[in-house]
Amino acid sequence: MNQKIKWFRERMRIFDLDGMIVSNPINIEYLTGLKAEGMLLITRKENIFLTDSRYIEEVKSILTVDDEIIINNYKDLIDYDYERFFSFCENVGFEEYYATYAKYKEYKQKFKINNLEETEKIIEKQRAIKEKSEIIKIKKACEITDKCFNYLLQFIKVGKTEIEIAKEIERFLINNGADDISFKPIVASGPNSSKPHAVPTERKITVGDVVLLDFGCKYKGYCSDMSRTVFMNYVTEKTRKLYNLILEIKEKAQEHYIEGKNLKTIVKMVETEFKLNNQDLIHSLGHGVGLEIHELPFCNLKKDCILKENMVLTNEPGIYIPGMFGIRIEDTVLINKDGAESLTKSNRDIIVIK
Amino acid sequence: MNQKIKWFRERMRIFDLDGMIVSNPINIEYLTGLKAEGMLLITRKENIFLTDSRYIEEVKSILTVDDEIIINNYKDLIDYDYERFFSFCENVGFEEYYATYAKYKEYKQKFKINNLEETEKIIEKQRAIKEKSEIIKIKKACEITDKCFNYLLQFIKVGKTEIEIAKEIERFLINNGADDISFKPIVASGPNSSKPHAVPTERKITVGDVVLLDFGCKYKGYCSDMSRTVFMNYVTEKTRKLYNLILEIKEKAQEHYIEGKNLKTIVKMVETEFKLNNQDLIHSLGHGVGLEIHELPFCNLKKDCILKENMVLTNEPGIYIPGMFGIRIEDTVLINKDGAESLTKSNRDIIVIK
Repeated sequence: MNQKIKWFRERMRIFDLDGMIVSNPINIEYLTGLKAEGMLLITRKENIFLTDSRYIEEVKSILTVDDEIIINNYKDLIDYDYERFFSFCENVGFEEYYATYAKYKEYKQKFKINNLEETEKIIEKQRAIKEKSEIIKIKKACEITDKCFNYLLQFIKVGKTEIEIAKEIERFLINNGADDISFKPIVASGPNSSKPHAVPTERKITVGDVVLLDFGCKYKGYCSDMSRTVFMNYVTEKTRKLYNLILEIKEKAQEHYIEGKNLKTIVKMVETEFKLNNQDLIHSLGHGVGLEIHELPFCNLKKDCILKENMVLTNEPGIYIPGMFGIRIEDTVLINKDGAESLTKSNRDIIVIK
Repeated sequence: MNQKIKWFRERMRIFDLDGMIVSNPINIEYLTGLKAEGMLLITRKENIFLTDSRYIEEVKSILTVDDEIIINNYKDLIDYDYERFFSFCENVGFEEYYATYAKYKEYKQKFKINNLEETEKIIEKQRAIKEKSEIIKIKKACEITDKCFNYLLQFIKVGKTEIEIAKEIERFLINNGADDISFKPIVASGPNSSKPHAVPTERKITVGDVVLLDFGCKYKGYCSDMSRTVFMNYVTEKTRKLYNLILEIKEKAQEHYIEGKNLKTIVKMVETEFKLNNQDLIHSLGHGVGLEIHELPFCNLKKDCILKENMVLTNEPGIYIPGMFGIRIEDTVLINKDGAESLTKSNRDIIVIK
């Protein structure tokens, strides 16, 4: 059986689950390597992947005997088969943060499950801690991202539109080995940069603009995420001070991106630093990165979250002054036992494009 | 108030709903034009959009007084506000096919709603019938798609890989006015074409290959979808017959893409035609196209679905012979009162690329 499913069965035992319905495609990809639509059933003795005719052939060509995953086509199943999958299972888990209410009702009725149990992101929690092979892929995605930023320093010119630059980012990433972008690039110039999630517009880059760039790509399914803020022709003293303040706070935060530290405390610290400088942290400090661009752990004040070795998450403090401009500096960061390692490495100093 | 919300309130009255929680972002985009993360509450007297600091500024810049939508920031709300939104509301609807089980529980608890009612895709059903302005956008997306196919006839050559061609499709669509692709292009050659949802590989196009192309783009948010199957250097007599069979069945099906016809009956007819020719329809005959690449109506045998004027859906019969090859011909089609109109118009005859 593959290692990830083996581990997962271990966890199921701890949580007293006799079975599990995995429907989140990212969790299925993580556990099986499959990208097909379908449903993974972990039953008492078997691992079963249910899918439809569109995917059957492909799935068969990817799985090997060692995976120990049985493939079933929905159309070959009758009601009785569904009832049989979890017979003698007392507690069967499902993904309450993924399955819709309609699906929940369907599962209960179709599988005839007594206790359909919420599982509190049991798989997502494991995904937060990366294996070596996963880290290699993220590193490669980060390399391509750095390369793109380097290229942009030549490409960005007064007169180009945000959309033009965003399209160029997509093109560059894909032409340089990425399988995909990890999210639609943000290119926000001048006052647009004060919107943390701005969508690129037809606005032309102008002398004196702040240009906020936020982009990333996927390599073999794994994401990177980076932001840099650059300045057109000149940068005012006031803006320069703000930039350096953010950079300083970011570096201070990163000193605490170490195994054993509580993410909540780091966020609290950054918030305090912001407030001491009459600013607000209106945007989350960071989020995990992996098969998804946003995944566990999430940086917030609501929950304790102890950092563990081989977690990968962003560090992205930013200041946003409505109608004026915004500055964000962001890296994808790997947690080690004794310190953090920025996987995106592009120049973080003030860059003025002439 | 905007027309779409007005219509929606009308529908709510018919379904005896005093309020509605809209959380599906596509439905929010449809009703409000907003692309921000958040939640739309239709209460007895107000339309309220809840969002967070990342989007507040942008949302304010898009909505006008005429929209009659109140904007609230989550962080300014206290528990009591949530309880107040639906006070005196007996039945409040939610999107059971979108909201997760966890969200369902949260809504119940947070809004203190007595009857949180399933609404059976009430908004998706309206989205299925397009307004004039929506059809214009879909037509434009289809035009770009046709242009791309025309270009591909020159671009595809023996020796190029599926991935190369897929990347070129993305590049072409975006460079020719699309805001985005509507899904990752399928380029499946030789035996790969027998997988209806094949992912492009490093396989090189070879003399004698069947090459199945399935792609589309978005224009101002609205999607197109088209498939064509072309042949490298020659086509065998047997394959030619199969191709013409599919084309004939497709055209026959399309004669029934008219207001008032039952989609289920059309699918039944196509299935029967396939069986009479010793083939199986293993892939759905079609699906609605709009803000989403797959939306209502869906072609299947499970449900009756009466076609209505201004619905836009695909017509895409295909034959897939495992390990050998596949052929699919697909168009995005507009339903009119007295006939169907293919919005993608690329050549449907047998094309041999030399």
